Amino acid sequence: MNFPSKILENAVNEVSQLPGIGKRSALRLVLHLLNRPKEQTEYLTSALNTMRNDIKFCNNCHNISDKEVCEICANPKRQKDMICVVEDVRDVMAIENTAQFKGIYHVLGGKISPIDGIGPHHLNIQSLIDKIQNNDVSEVIFALSSTMEGDTTNFYIFKQIEKYDIKISTIARGIAVGDEIEYADEITLGRSILNRIPFENSLKS
Amino acid sequence: MNFPSKILENAVNEVSQLPGIGKRSALRLVLHLLNRPKEQTEYLTSALNTMRNDIKFCNNCHNISDKEVCEICANPKRQKDMICVVEDVRDVMAIENTAQFKGIYHVLGGKISPIDGIGPHHLNIQSLIDKIQNNDVSEVIFALSSTMEGDTTNFYIFKQIEKYDIKISTIARGIAVGDEIEYADEITLGRSILNRIPFENSLKS
Repeated sequence: MNFPSKILENAVNEVSQLPGIGKRSALRLVLHLLNRPKEQTEYLTSALNTMRNDIKFCNNCHNISDKEVCEICANPKRQKDMICVVEDVRDVMAIENTAQFKGIYHVLGGKISPIDGIGPHHLNIQSLIDKIQNNDVSEVIFALSSTMEGDTTNFYIFKQIEKYDIKISTIARGIAVGDEIEYADEITLGRSILNRIPFENSLKS
Repeated sequence: MNFPSKILENAVNEVSQLPGIGKRSALRLVLHLLNRPKEQTEYLTSALNTMRNDIKFCNNCHNISDKEVCEICANPKRQKDMICVVEDVRDVMAIENTAQFKGIYHVLGGKISPIDGIGPHHLNIQSLIDKIQNNDVSEVIFALSSTMEGDTTNFYIFKQIEKYDIKISTIARGIAVGDEIEYADEITLGRSILNRIPFENSLKS
């Protein structure tokens, strides 16, 4: 693209660094800001700068938080010895939305992915092991995406913690509620038969 | 969405003000920045602030420019009495890419759109009429999108300038090069028959 202005080109280049945003979309976003009052750009950039510089992570579960200890870890009603291992804050938000989990979380901050250069030492794994060694934990629940990276990460952590006397589980994989059996993929359908559950359990909401 | 942090929520809300970006995409973008070095966020926000505060518009054609007069208007090789009327900088860039236009542009800054509250006085129309009154113009070429708003804008400007002794034309509408006739929409195909051109003309690149 031949830009009539270096300033415009620079802004478009920076915006197009974001994932899923190409040069054309970036130009559209930048021109949108240009057509809006200056305040909108100021609010946007200051919100991003504040976020990047001032955001904190919970000392206990590593989730994003405005305080030293997040609201979930600080809540006396949560069961502190039941730990759900997730990749990032989006998974915490998704599980919290279900209102079905009464324990606390442990946010890894990613998944083991050699292709992206992410090894176990880049993730918050040691602090999970420390908690288990301190006898603070009775159950660990893996809730990572069911991908190659997710399975690898599950397995790596499992190997580190299997020697401790705790319950280790993973969220159920199976046919989604509302899905047609005939369109389910073979692996999911196969596993859902192998890991079938007592019918009474399916009646619980 | 229930955010674990006000700072995060604020950043997501600001990003999701941008057109075509919902809350989920905004969260993905914000978390991406959080996983990157702080410099990336700084570069992005300072490029946006510089763009919003320092960008200039050409005194002559109203296109985005780093100088008082843009490179196209300042180029002595461009034919200054042939003016192509476009909506915004994207159209200038698209037409410049073809390398087929030797005149200069007039950037309206939008299209007449009562639904969006944009009337003729919001656009750079008066300065075009002034140029024509000063006898600086021999031909005006409309190159607005072929939509309701584009056609309305064309017609409004045409009514204002038809009394002057200048040529007024519009870019050709027709079947795109490489398109199959059978899949063309009726209106385009109908117009392309009515506005047929001498066959020799189609041989020019």
